[in-house]
Amino acid sequence: MAGSGFGRIFRITTWGESHGPALGVVIDGCPAGLTLCEEDIQVFLDRRKPGASPLSTPRSEADKVKILSGVFEGVTTGAPISLMVENTSQRSSDYGEMKDTYRPGHADYCYDAKYGIRDYRGGGRSSGRETIGRVAAGAIASKILSELGISVEAYTTSIGPVKIREGIYSREQVLSCPTAMPDAEADKEATEYVQKMAAEKNSVGGTMECIIRHMPAGIGDPVFDKLDALLASAVMSIGAVKAVEIGDGTAVSTLTGKENNDPFTTENGKVTKTTNHSGGILGGISDGTDILVRASVKPTPSIFSPQETVNKNGDPVTLTIAGRHDPVIIPRAVVVMEAMCAITVLDALLVNQSARLQYLKDFYS
Amino acid sequence: MAGSGFGRIFRITTWGESHGPALGVVIDGCPAGLTLCEEDIQVFLDRRKPGASPLSTPRSEADKVKILSGVFEGVTTGAPISLMVENTSQRSSDYGEMKDTYRPGHADYCYDAKYGIRDYRGGGRSSGRETIGRVAAGAIASKILSELGISVEAYTTSIGPVKIREGIYSREQVLSCPTAMPDAEADKEATEYVQKMAAEKNSVGGTMECIIRHMPAGIGDPVFDKLDALLASAVMSIGAVKAVEIGDGTAVSTLTGKENNDPFTTENGKVTKTTNHSGGILGGISDGTDILVRASVKPTPSIFSPQETVNKNGDPVTLTIAGRHDPVIIPRAVVVMEAMCAITVLDALLVNQSARLQYLKDFYS
Amino acid sequence: MAGSGFGRIFRITTWGESHGPALGVVIDGCPAGLTLCEEDIQVFLDRRKPGASPLSTPRSEADKVKILSGVFEGVTTGAPISLMVENTSQRSSDYGEMKDTYRPGHADYCYDAKYGIRDYRGGGRSSGRETIGRVAAGAIASKILSELGISVEAYTTSIGPVKIREGIYSREQVLSCPTAMPDAEADKEATEYVQKMAAEKNSVGGTMECIIRHMPAGIGDPVFDKLDALLASAVMSIGAVKAVEIGDGTAVSTLTGKENNDPFTTENGKVTKTTNHSGGILGGISDGTDILVRASVKPTPSIFSPQETVNKNGDPVTLTIAGRHDPVIIPRAVVVMEAMCAITVLDALLVNQSARLQYLKDFYS
Amino acid sequence: MAGSGFGRIFRITTWGESHGPALGVVIDGCPAGLTLCEEDIQVFLDRRKPGASPLSTPRSEADKVKILSGVFEGVTTGAPISLMVENTSQRSSDYGEMKDTYRPGHADYCYDAKYGIRDYRGGGRSSGRETIGRVAAGAIASKILSELGISVEAYTTSIGPVKIREGIYSREQVLSCPTAMPDAEADKEATEYVQKMAAEKNSVGGTMECIIRHMPAGIGDPVFDKLDALLASAVMSIGAVKAVEIGDGTAVSTLTGKENNDPFTTENGKVTKTTNHSGGILGGISDGTDILVRASVKPTPSIFSPQETVNKNGDPVTLTIAGRHDPVIIPRAVVVMEAMCAITVLDALLVNQSARLQYLKDFYS
Repeated sequence: MAGSGFGRIFRITTWGESHGPALGVVIDGCPAGLTLCEEDIQVFLDRRKPGASPLSTPRSEADKVKILSGVFEGVTTGAPISLMVENTSQRSSDYGEMKDTYRPGHADYCYDAKYGIRDYRGGGRSSGRETIGRVAAGAIASKILSELGISVEAYTTSIGPVKIREGIYSREQVLSCPTAMPDAEADKEATEYVQKMAAEKNSVGGTMECIIRHMPAGIGDPVFDKLDALLASAVMSIGAVKAVEIGDGTAVSTLTGKENNDPFTTENGKVTKTTNHSGGILGGISDGTDILVRASVKPTPSIFSPQETVNKNGDPVTLTIAGRHDPVIIPRAVVVMEAMCAITVLDALLVNQSARLQYLKDFYS
Repeated sequence: MAGSGFGRIFRITTWGESHGPALGVVIDGCPAGLTLCEEDIQVFLDRRKPGASPLSTPRSEADKVKILSGVFEGVTTGAPISLMVENTSQRSSDYGEMKDTYRPGHADYCYDAKYGIRDYRGGGRSSGRETIGRVAAGAIASKILSELGISVEAYTTSIGPVKIREGIYSREQVLSCPTAMPDAEADKEATEYVQKMAAEKNSVGGTMECIIRHMPAGIGDPVFDKLDALLASAVMSIGAVKAVEIGDGTAVSTLTGKENNDPFTTENGKVTKTTNHSGGILGGISDGTDILVRASVKPTPSIFSPQETVNKNGDPVTLTIAGRHDPVIIPRAVVVMEAMCAITVLDALLVNQSARLQYLKDFYS
Repeated sequence: MAGSGFGRIFRITTWGESHGPALGVVIDGCPAGLTLCEEDIQVFLDRRKPGASPLSTPRSEADKVKILSGVFEGVTTGAPISLMVENTSQRSSDYGEMKDTYRPGHADYCYDAKYGIRDYRGGGRSSGRETIGRVAAGAIASKILSELGISVEAYTTSIGPVKIREGIYSREQVLSCPTAMPDAEADKEATEYVQKMAAEKNSVGGTMECIIRHMPAGIGDPVFDKLDALLASAVMSIGAVKAVEIGDGTAVSTLTGKENNDPFTTENGKVTKTTNHSGGILGGISDGTDILVRASVKPTPSIFSPQETVNKNGDPVTLTIAGRHDPVIIPRAVVVMEAMCAITVLDALLVNQSARLQYLKDFYS
Repeated sequence: MAGSGFGRIFRITTWGESHGPALGVVIDGCPAGLTLCEEDIQVFLDRRKPGASPLSTPRSEADKVKILSGVFEGVTTGAPISLMVENTSQRSSDYGEMKDTYRPGHADYCYDAKYGIRDYRGGGRSSGRETIGRVAAGAIASKILSELGISVEAYTTSIGPVKIREGIYSREQVLSCPTAMPDAEADKEATEYVQKMAAEKNSVGGTMECIIRHMPAGIGDPVFDKLDALLASAVMSIGAVKAVEIGDGTAVSTLTGKENNDPFTTENGKVTKTTNHSGGILGGISDGTDILVRASVKPTPSIFSPQETVNKNGDPVTLTIAGRHDPVIIPRAVVVMEAMCAITVLDALLVNQSARLQYLKDFYS
């Protein structure tokens, strides 16, 4: 109810603040029998770790994960998995000015309005560091999905005006370059653009995409727990995301039915579609083709230019933000999107095991 | 878990199929003490009723709602409110061909993949008629919100290439014209466009928006139950919606921080913002300005042109759909969007009453 | 949250009041593929129907169930199943006196304290008629369980001082006699006792038991969703139940570990126990032996003797209850207990399908 | 779904195993504004700490709690509160024999049946150490309740055949004596009894009670989330509890309506009852009088006498348990019961704030 939990069967609860002693996640409902070690999780966390690229905040955090429960002799036991990352590079002194002043584009005012109290150090709970828990849990979800042959891959599709070229896709490129773009040329151009804007004490937005391959058909629920509705909520819950699209997304509004309908066909005896405007989901349920989710991310609200705002008393204030901030959020948000999509899809796969009486009969026979 | 429920405190569960005896909704958690009669709900249902406009299916349904529980002497008692609408114009004969054939753009194949059985009459559970329950519940949520001074208004913003003009807004126009556009001129143009496409046995998409006015600041939860995340899920769960945007939505991806940040200011002693790129939500919590949600809706998948598809056995089939279908979904989806946003916002307002210990102390003192 | 829902995957929501137009239940998450007709449900409802025995209220209700959704051509589709029973024998005139007066042992005062409004006719939502929805849903759960070879049988174990004899068990007896006792001799004696007390304008309590046979081992969750915790909640939620016991129940408090521990052994290659003090559950998880749940039920609070109480204004009032009331609740509560246990156990079986990664791999391979 | 979470608004998730690096709990939904320090929690944990009494296991754990999040400058912020206790006295060597052998009265076999894998060290997740998270969360719930003037006090009512005398109640006695009995004489007698049984390599059961004073009337929900149903689930979820009673509990089965009905009266202008057979709850909702919950607890299953059982392969084994075990569970379970009742009651109080439209109007006016 207070919103730190996500998922139905594979249920995660994240906790922690930017400048508290630690952050983490508890995963309840992870199936028993998964081989799991800290390194499985660490490779995901390293993708969102600050300080790893020229585009990222210089805050230097090792972000080393510890498994505190739920794993015995390297295998998950079905008990809740508690994961913790200690904060080591808090510099709360940077944030004194934020105590009483509302940063534009940030949640400071909203937290005060809601709670009447606010941990202002580095944004407290509203900090992007909260996503450590999501990414750690997503690493586990992804590992389970890979055992089922399902892959979840997110990447940057544009930064400011720079878009990746169609048809260019390299997973290695995504995992190694500063922008998380699958296209080396676009990466170079986007990097320059971000650096230019950062030099102007400005920040930039962008778009990212997640593609889920080899999903079985029939996953997701009708009505409110449609797979696309759950993905929309999962991705919109990432700070700074302002739009979520499935398949052709906003483009469908100017298409006609003749253009937008994907004809069914068969391939190797399996039903499939000749096009994929729908993004792999029809009526809220996977149709067996690639699932495509897209997100639009706003420019980092923390810019180093002076900004007009007010303080707690409502007095006008000109604020110049100090501290350590990324001039673009996207590259580090990509792994968060991947994590949220993995968790959502895994959860839907688990829920789906109850769809038919025959499944139950086969299971308990 | 099976997805027919929505909301945390104000919790709705819809039920019913297109060609079953009835459809309805149970609302658990509606506060006691609300004056409520069937007419309060009927005015909302009449806005989504088929056959009411030249752009709508000729299926003629009275869609008369009955209150079966939860209301005593015209006032809600806190007990679950059960609402039912009987189906009266089922013509299942229209749908025989759909028994074994998968309509492109529809959920037929996905339901078969999931359940191994499918009520094919009129789309069964995947029919737009399921939204009767949502709209009925939304009418109640809207009535409660209006008692709190909060208004929720949705309207069509574009149909195919025809967009409403900026700054033209008439609620009466929205409620009375075939397109649910707030702009009479655009309505006329869009109506002609739809009729032309319908004559070509084609269908069209569009966009719709919902504006929530007079929201208090501080509503919504951090992390996963962000108000925008819940709205995204609520709106994406409406059949045919393929994108959800908050505030500037997809446009933020090419903005800079300087452009996108909304400066805070005060007005009559209250904190507010000089611009509203954020669409009234920051960090997942309302900031006290208008909340703006936008949805992109795909063209009706049921078109009367022949289409290539396959049947249950995987054999190629050329399908020509019969039956009664809207050439555009948007005008009747607008009230569904309004309903879903009202339910989401009301639920968040209810949840928020637990945010502070002081609230609890005031309440129980 | 408002408490009319129960279950996690097999999720039921009941609605309706004693004197409203109808009562019912929506079941979301019933697996697709179950053969189901109204008669399957009716046989259960007939067991709780009033007027069927000399011990029951003379209120005469047919309690005929209608299936409104979720079943197509006699088979469940996975869509929510909406079941409705119309009230036909409301005599609200009986209840005028209850409008302002708080009946001892009833929830009248508590409803007023909570909601500030109360449908006083026949107890409104707090009436035993609410259990119609539970029994209807329980009939479906039981049918599914029987397809898995699991039986759920409840029966009366005592009424006032009259106890059934150990070792005497006839299901036919339970289903046909006025007391729902499995022992004809005890039934006769208890019936006479109840009739005597009723003649004295008094009422009596009793105990009932539910035995679940052929449960697989390994069902239920550790910690809060222990199978016994869920059963306790399910059974305690039945009006008038004041105690729930598992296995030896209260008797364990004076046993020693040597007496109470059930030695494990094997039988036909399967692990089992030589005794069953634990009632089939250890650590919250089924151990493969019979599950035993026991409930203590208070005497009907509606007695025809004059009682001291107060009215809404706090004035002392001597109340003599009119209307139609059972002098003992147990015989008609037995099928409600059976229904609640069946729903709980089925839900736990569904949840359990996600316990191991291997299950997921087998399922999706 | 996997059962490590409890509560609706005040939602706790416990994690950790007996011999893992740490145990803990995350509390999501704790209202902001509560003054909270580690010592507030520590005093509760010290009551369940092992090694503190002659009746308790000699395992020596400091059980020092750390607050990892959700508290800023000594006040809760509304963010999730993560609490951790490190394990320091693991002696896994004690448990080698349990790897393959099923201890009678324990969950070993059930965990294997469910998960196919088991952390056998000290019982793993099924260990009583899991309750550390419950007690820590309960300390916070109790502190909030005390700010509302509500007290929650649990105590031992019997151990084996030794019962406390009626009318003797000293909270100090409960908090300081080995048995947690409110009666010094009974404490002495019970202590001797336990020591005698322990010397015989046996163990004993008992009963405990929790009384909740100064509850407002109107708290709890009708139907499934009845306050007594939630308390039953909360208390039955404590390992070793086999029965839960409310008010007169099992005794109601032999009472008549005339005896069991509590007459209403008024006292200082407030409605109250002249007797309290109901234990403070009617129709699932608090009636403003003391709430009484009773639990029966089985004797510790870990006894030092040799026991007949089987191993994983089903071979008969004579098992003699080593390790460190309490000869009676009750004294340390009392604070767990208190914690679970406090959490349940607080949660119901939070939920209740949404019961009436007028509350919402007052809140948002």
